[in-house]
Amino acid sequence: MAVPVALIQGASRGLGLEFCKHILKNKSLAVVIATCRNPDGSSELRGLSGQHPGRLTVLKLDVNHEQEILEAAEQVKQNFGRLDLLINSSAMLHPSKRGETSLRDVSAQGVISTLTTNTVGPLVMAKYFAPLLQKGSGAFGQQPAVKAKHHSGIIANITAKVGSIGDNGLGGWYSYRMSKAALNMATRNLSIELGRSRPRVVCVSIHPGTVNTDLSRPYHKNVPKEKLFSPEHSVSCLMSIINSLNIDKTGKAYSWDGTELPW
Amino acid sequence: MAVPVALIQGASRGLGLEFCKHILKNKSLAVVIATCRNPDGSSELRGLSGQHPGRLTVLKLDVNHEQEILEAAEQVKQNFGRLDLLINSSAMLHPSKRGETSLRDVSAQGVISTLTTNTVGPLVMAKYFAPLLQKGSGAFGQQPAVKAKHHSGIIANITAKVGSIGDNGLGGWYSYRMSKAALNMATRNLSIELGRSRPRVVCVSIHPGTVNTDLSRPYHKNVPKEKLFSPEHSVSCLMSIINSLNIDKTGKAYSWDGTELPW
Ligand SMILES: NC(=O)c1ccc[n+]([C@@H]2O[C@H](COP(=O)([O-])OP(=O)(O)OC[C@H]3O[C@@H](n4cnc5c(N)ncnc54)[C@H](OP(=O)(O)O)[C@@H]3O)[C@@H](O)[C@H]2O)c1
Ligand SMILES: NC(=O)c1ccc[n+]([C@@H]2O[C@H](COP(=O)([O-])OP(=O)(O)OC[C@H]3O[C@@H](n4cnc5c(N)ncnc54)[C@H](OP(=O)(O)O)[C@@H]3O)[C@@H](O)[C@H]2O)c1
Repeated sequence: MAVPVALIQGASRGLGLEFCKHILKNKSLAVVIATCRNPDGSSELRGLSGQHPGRLTVLKLDVNHEQEILEAAEQVKQNFGRLDLLINSSAMLHPSKRGETSLRDVSAQGVISTLTTNTVGPLVMAKYFAPLLQKGSGAFGQQPAVKAKHHSGIIANITAKVGSIGDNGLGGWYSYRMSKAALNMATRNLSIELGRSRPRVVCVSIHPGTVNTDLSRPYHKNVPKEKLFSPEHSVSCLMSIINSLNIDKTGKAYSWDGTELPW
Repeated sequence: MAVPVALIQGASRGLGLEFCKHILKNKSLAVVIATCRNPDGSSELRGLSGQHPGRLTVLKLDVNHEQEILEAAEQVKQNFGRLDLLINSSAMLHPSKRGETSLRDVSAQGVISTLTTNTVGPLVMAKYFAPLLQKGSGAFGQQPAVKAKHHSGIIANITAKVGSIGDNGLGGWYSYRMSKAALNMATRNLSIELGRSRPRVVCVSIHPGTVNTDLSRPYHKNVPKEKLFSPEHSVSCLMSIINSLNIDKTGKAYSWDGTELPW
């Protein structure tokens, strides 16, 4: 059997780092490619690499630089020849680290930066890694009995419940909400293009719940304790979803508990 | 009674120009502010201005330049002191004038340009014109009997059916679809922020159908004749929707025939 290959984009901290740990621990045959902006700066990733010799590759990749994405894809192609799972985890709330509370806080530059990182980045990742995912061995998710329905790879874009337009009752956080709504559209489009004919790639958006990471830190004090998940708990829920995916579940957004999110 | 004041953003051609014509013709007391990138270049707007002396003001406004939006709002404030209707009509399919048919055509720069014009532009317009819309006299839409439900102004963002994530069965057109999905989120957020307390501004997305304009020109040959609307017909349908709006209809997306579009 082929060695499962997973790539986690945005792996220096938070959920991205936790996905690396989880897969290295729970999928003992898998190799993990962790990408981040500053490999030298992530002591956590270096430590993990020492704990799992030969199983973790760290690549430099700023999702805002198309050329770096292209080069990373080239390296993965040369070293592994394929990919089974791509998780796009990187994102920001806003360059100021605070979502806009009202129009007063909105600036063109703030919205554009947020959209560029949170939305354009994951789509351009899909562009360059889709050919490798189409060469995947389908090591993640569930393969149905019917061979014609098998998938070769999976793309999981980390979305957010606040990116659901229909669910939006509170407003605010213009840049972040818009970036995740547009990301959900990208997921949907990818699911169509990459699900049409074999080899098929399953594409979903997944919402991690409210998780104890830097991104949400300014808001933790407003979250009831039992609703603030540890990265371990959130990633364990999200990996259950990923492990249950098949082509019939493509093109949708799922919450950490497996329920479907409205667009 | 106060003179109705409407501002059409992206008025040099296509639907934006037609909105100006329609309002000047059918709302005989209204004044219209038409904004466009190159006022000197739009002979159509100049002609219209001659036909309706004193009723049409043309202002320079490139929706990608926040400073120009701010300055236009300042001028409208000085000259009119308020606004009753803002229509954001400008958009592009893609800088290449063709929607992406597959991931191969996707580039970070193409997506970012499209998002900047189609999504960030209308939101930043709302930022600077909301204070004037809150001073509006509610001359467009329907005011319900209950005074507490009255609105002072309306924002109509021109969306597209292909911007509906739930309705997306075909894929392709990544940049344009994503830009309109994110615009719909902006509409929804605006409706919440500006609908919460008086003065209220009604905010909707509206889909014009497939219309005979430059934007859709490369695709007209694929459209059955009876489904390719003239700008006159489309704008007449859209103005019926706008004329029927009230605060209970805010925060939604409507198609040219008045039906609600899914997100
Ligand atoms: N935490 C929550 O409550 C929550 C809720 C809903 C959704 N989410 C989503 O979950 C995902 C993970 O977020 P998190 O909570 O783990 O946030 P986090 O702890 O703040 O981590 C953000 C990660 O994104 C990376 N990143 C930012 N800009 C980047 C760029 N241009 N190129 C590459 N990497 C970049 C950061 O790298 P550096 O170390 O280089 O800065 C960091 O690894 C995000 O998509 C977020 O929207 C989180
Ligand atoms: N036509 C259709 O079938 C169709 C279908 C669904 C939705 N829509 C939507 O309807 C709206 C109107 O489109 P249309 O069909 O009238 O297109 P159009 O004839 O191509 O006109 C586009 C307009 O947008 C303006 N514009 C472009 N970039 C701008 C910028 N940066 N700043 C200011 N103005 C800018 C153009 O001005 P210049 O003259 O300066 O270039 C022009 O006035 C758009 O939102 C479009 O997405 C159209």
